[in-house]
Amino acid sequence: MSLLNTKKFPGELKTMSYREMEELAAEIREVLIGTVSHTGGHLASNLGVVELTIAMHCCFDSPADRFVFDVGHQAYTHKILTGRLDKFDTLRREGGISGFCRPNESPHDIFSTGHAGASVSAALGLIEGERIKGGGKGYTVAVVGDGAFTGGMIYEALNNNNSRRGSRLIVVINENEMSISKNVGALAQYLADIRAKPAYHKFKADTETALRKIPIMGKAAARGASKIKSTIKNWMYSSTWFEDMGFRYIGPIDGHNLPTLVRAFQSAKWLGRPVVIHIHTTKGKGYHPAEESPSVFHGIGRFDLETGEPLPCDTDYSAAFGAKLCELAARNANVCAITAAMSLGTGLTEFSQRFPGRFFDVGIAEQHAAAFAGGLAKDGMIPVFAVYSTFLQRCYDQIWHDVALQGQKVIFAVDRAGFVGGDGESHQGLYDVSMLSGVPGLEIYVPSSYAELEHMLEYAVLEAKAPVCIRYPRGCEDKLPADFMPSGGAWDSYGESGAAITLVTYGRLFAQAVQALELLKKQGTSIRIIKLNRILPVDFFAIQAAAQSQRVFFFEEGVRAGGVGERFGAALLELGWRGEYKITAVPDGFVPQASVESLLARYSLDAAGMQLTMCLHS
Amino acid sequence: MSLLNTKKFPGELKTMSYREMEELAAEIREVLIGTVSHTGGHLASNLGVVELTIAMHCCFDSPADRFVFDVGHQAYTHKILTGRLDKFDTLRREGGISGFCRPNESPHDIFSTGHAGASVSAALGLIEGERIKGGGKGYTVAVVGDGAFTGGMIYEALNNNNSRRGSRLIVVINENEMSISKNVGALAQYLADIRAKPAYHKFKADTETALRKIPIMGKAAARGASKIKSTIKNWMYSSTWFEDMGFRYIGPIDGHNLPTLVRAFQSAKWLGRPVVIHIHTTKGKGYHPAEESPSVFHGIGRFDLETGEPLPCDTDYSAAFGAKLCELAARNANVCAITAAMSLGTGLTEFSQRFPGRFFDVGIAEQHAAAFAGGLAKDGMIPVFAVYSTFLQRCYDQIWHDVALQGQKVIFAVDRAGFVGGDGESHQGLYDVSMLSGVPGLEIYVPSSYAELEHMLEYAVLEAKAPVCIRYPRGCEDKLPADFMPSGGAWDSYGESGAAITLVTYGRLFAQAVQALELLKKQGTSIRIIKLNRILPVDFFAIQAAAQSQRVFFFEEGVRAGGVGERFGAALLELGWRGEYKITAVPDGFVPQASVESLLARYSLDAAGMQLTMCLHS
Repeated sequence: MSLLNTKKFPGELKTMSYREMEELAAEIREVLIGTVSHTGGHLASNLGVVELTIAMHCCFDSPADRFVFDVGHQAYTHKILTGRLDKFDTLRREGGISGFCRPNESPHDIFSTGHAGASVSAALGLIEGERIKGGGKGYTVAVVGDGAFTGGMIYEALNNNNSRRGSRLIVVINENEMSISKNVGALAQYLADIRAKPAYHKFKADTETALRKIPIMGKAAARGASKIKSTIKNWMYSSTWFEDMGFRYIGPIDGHNLPTLVRAFQSAKWLGRPVVIHIHTTKGKGYHPAEESPSVFHGIGRFDLETGEPLPCDTDYSAAFGAKLCELAARNANVCAITAAMSLGTGLTEFSQRFPGRFFDVGIAEQHAAAFAGGLAKDGMIPVFAVYSTFLQRCYDQIWHDVALQGQKVIFAVDRAGFVGGDGESHQGLYDVSMLSGVPGLEIYVPSSYAELEHMLEYAVLEAKAPVCIRYPRGCEDKLPADFMPSGGAWDSYGESGAAITLVTYGRLFAQAVQALELLKKQGTSIRIIKLNRILPVDFFAIQAAAQSQRVFFFEEGVRAGGVGERFGAALLELGWRGEYKITAVPDGFVPQASVESLLARYSLDAAGMQLTMCLHS
Repeated sequence: MSLLNTKKFPGELKTMSYREMEELAAEIREVLIGTVSHTGGHLASNLGVVELTIAMHCCFDSPADRFVFDVGHQAYTHKILTGRLDKFDTLRREGGISGFCRPNESPHDIFSTGHAGASVSAALGLIEGERIKGGGKGYTVAVVGDGAFTGGMIYEALNNNNSRRGSRLIVVINENEMSISKNVGALAQYLADIRAKPAYHKFKADTETALRKIPIMGKAAARGASKIKSTIKNWMYSSTWFEDMGFRYIGPIDGHNLPTLVRAFQSAKWLGRPVVIHIHTTKGKGYHPAEESPSVFHGIGRFDLETGEPLPCDTDYSAAFGAKLCELAARNANVCAITAAMSLGTGLTEFSQRFPGRFFDVGIAEQHAAAFAGGLAKDGMIPVFAVYSTFLQRCYDQIWHDVALQGQKVIFAVDRAGFVGGDGESHQGLYDVSMLSGVPGLEIYVPSSYAELEHMLEYAVLEAKAPVCIRYPRGCEDKLPADFMPSGGAWDSYGESGAAITLVTYGRLFAQAVQALELLKKQGTSIRIIKLNRILPVDFFAIQAAAQSQRVFFFEEGVRAGGVGERFGAALLELGWRGEYKITAVPDGFVPQASVESLLARYSLDAAGMQLTMCLHS
């Protein structure tokens, strides 16, 4: 690790030769692979942008020049080069380095990221702000994967870019033919088409030789200006698409070739107006298992360094969902599955292979996914849109407007609901319940086991007449007591039905509640658990049942405001119930990265926290 | 009205000559102008698409061929031609014809519309559904204004279109250089550029003469096939932009010329793969005042038929907001205003003229608007995004992710909050409070008068440290009692402070509450009113104050689930309060078009309803 440990970054990058930079890239790759193998994280995308990030820090002065990494899960090299090497082994761990850009972590992280497509909007805001302040000498570089180009937000920003000319905006499109799953859609095809032109390959070879001879910095570089001019001319492939959007276009270039990258950035600076630089990189570059299977290594848990094999893991909720959906699709020819670039993560791989004609990967386009599902439903199809809770936030309006308003039967399989662990603030699945509360006619179901998930999915697909959400957490089901028999109805009761204390909860917390019940029993206190299976609307009889005890404790793995605990409490009060009520949920604020176990404990949502809460208020 | 009253539509359109169709167009325009002058509605956009709609019904068989009107406010001619002429004078009135497409109104209204950009997603869903069912002989025509092309959702759909070739999708882009305000952005410019090519005008003249000679239907048309083939060739302007998105492109053509339109649709059908037809129309066509000022006639109230002057109206909340924001912008050079194509409706016209460098119309792009505001705020600007409540639904994720997560001070001025009247289901401002409940760190303020709005805006702009929403209704402030003195704090009290009954409410309903108080006083019952000025978070002392009475009634002009009434009730219960509590709010379900007065009465949210509710439960 001689370079990483001896040089001062990012400053000294500017004095390094290309050979040294290549050495540095190799060192960084070692850190990335070594760290992610024991922390988990986004490996493939980070291995793909090592050279890009080095070139950016070589050509620009961060943070005076501002880098906005779209999504931000590809910013590990950026973090290593901006003073976070020594803490890098805390990646994604409690109290450690975030897997995304976080302004509170470093002034080099300009904008908090996590969801695709926001970078250009943010960059334009930064540029306009500078202009109004009268500053604005710096450049703003947005690094965007081609996956984000399947989403609408990036177009809104690109379309809006030319409102004021001359902005120092550089958009790097990192084409790696993958967002998370294989990219889809017209624009992905378009980028590939440009690169497939035979001229590209010849040109690439020629320029690379030529460029290697031009010094990076200093006077010689200045003398190279006319050279740059002609280089640019050569680079101006005919990309009317981006030019119609008001950008100059440079590319496509090899994103692993440092001299080419450096020259491209210098050219872009010289142009002095909005530029798109289209680079091509290999996801997983430099680590064979990741190059071979980039979507497995997109966001990976811990894995074996030698073989690249993920540490063994049982089935999980996503897999249970995927298997059940295949079974239902085999029984009913109208069942369709939709994913927004998450077929692996949401467990739809088998479905996509067995039922290709009814499988739709629409790209990172949740808005379109929901409205498209509305259209399918109109034709009598039974569309199931599998989506992470955090990304469901992107399509509130379409759920409301293009599904619920029409009473369309669309099923939202909401994965990663609840605490998510290492991804942290921007990916917590704690807000969907509150967000969706007011959507008319929507039902929300919450399984506590695979069996319940399967039952609810079957109900939704075969029986429901209106839109349904089924939400379940990342990971595995918890062990439930052998004497618990799910009713298959809107709620279940467990424990002593005449108890003075009732614990109300739903989803994953039921397993914690059962443990709390055991703990309390040892203290001589008996309680009843009401487990809600449907949280929107809450069943009236569940409220009546709770009203039979003197004290009701509500535990919710979700944000308190707008949550089910408030709804339940207000309903109890309106019923005329006169007992003691206490909600324990996630309070106002953001929930940082940490293990699910740790977060459950922090918010008093684990068995011990439940026990303590109920003792303190008894 | 001879044609409209004697022919049977849409069927007999196919037997009419172009001359008759032109007569029909004139008759329809008379109906449109006459009706909207007394019902209010979207006049300019409907006058622009009379010929387009006639040509569509001439060339296709609705509803077997399916028309999806984007936004849907331009579907009046479609409604007139599909059996709704006799009820057309009930447009936008309670129990009458909707101003948008509504499947429950007619089988010709395929998809419920209202928000821009959803049509192509829905159309693709319809097409794929047909394919899976094994049908799919029909065409699906999406009619999209160029305004929708400033929003991302349409791109998500276009990008996704070529996933399965050969779909019978026709997208009509109606370029009228306006969405609601003047269109912005790169693509609007691009469309205009195509049309500005000199070849367009010559070609236009030539083809129109030629086309008029070809019969519309029957054998002669079939013989014209080779002619069509060569016509298409001529029409294939070089629009790489749409071709790169996987579409064949026909255009630009004159959207008021019936023979040209008919030929374009016939050509598109003949092509048998996804086609974009780019037409150019004049908003307000045929009614001089609307042609002159299309944005005034976009969505207009009642107006004088002779002069086109809107019936006089006092200032309203939007105007009060706009004036106050100008005052603040004059005092503070960092204040910026953002609109998503709604500068007139949100009261920002003066701001746009006085502070053009700090005014941003981003197009119908709420997602971008919110994230762009986040970027501006990062630079120390004070961005104020003025947006209708119903369209705010489009940017939940960006409010959460690109504003709140970063703690950015962005101000959302949420107009048209509450019941909206004639626009009906799809435009009610009843869901934002519930939707936003769980957004961490967000404050929501609700004025009951212009003075309070101004005060809250001043606080938000000059003092707040985090994101703030201020929400206010469409229309005018209500008269408040002279002895009511706003505190400027998070809540106010009015009436008898020791009363056994407390009425809690916020926003526009305060005026109704005051009237209810008077009514009850006459009956000998005195009450206290707690008026919340900030509804997120609710002030603890407001809850404590309410807890002093034995009975609390909460009235909310918004959806009950996830609303403030539930939050308030749960908090009272947790406090240990043991009184009677009753929430009156908008229940689960959709709220149809009707006057605000009528809707307040229907949901027991007017003074009489409040009085009755409190008597029944006392």
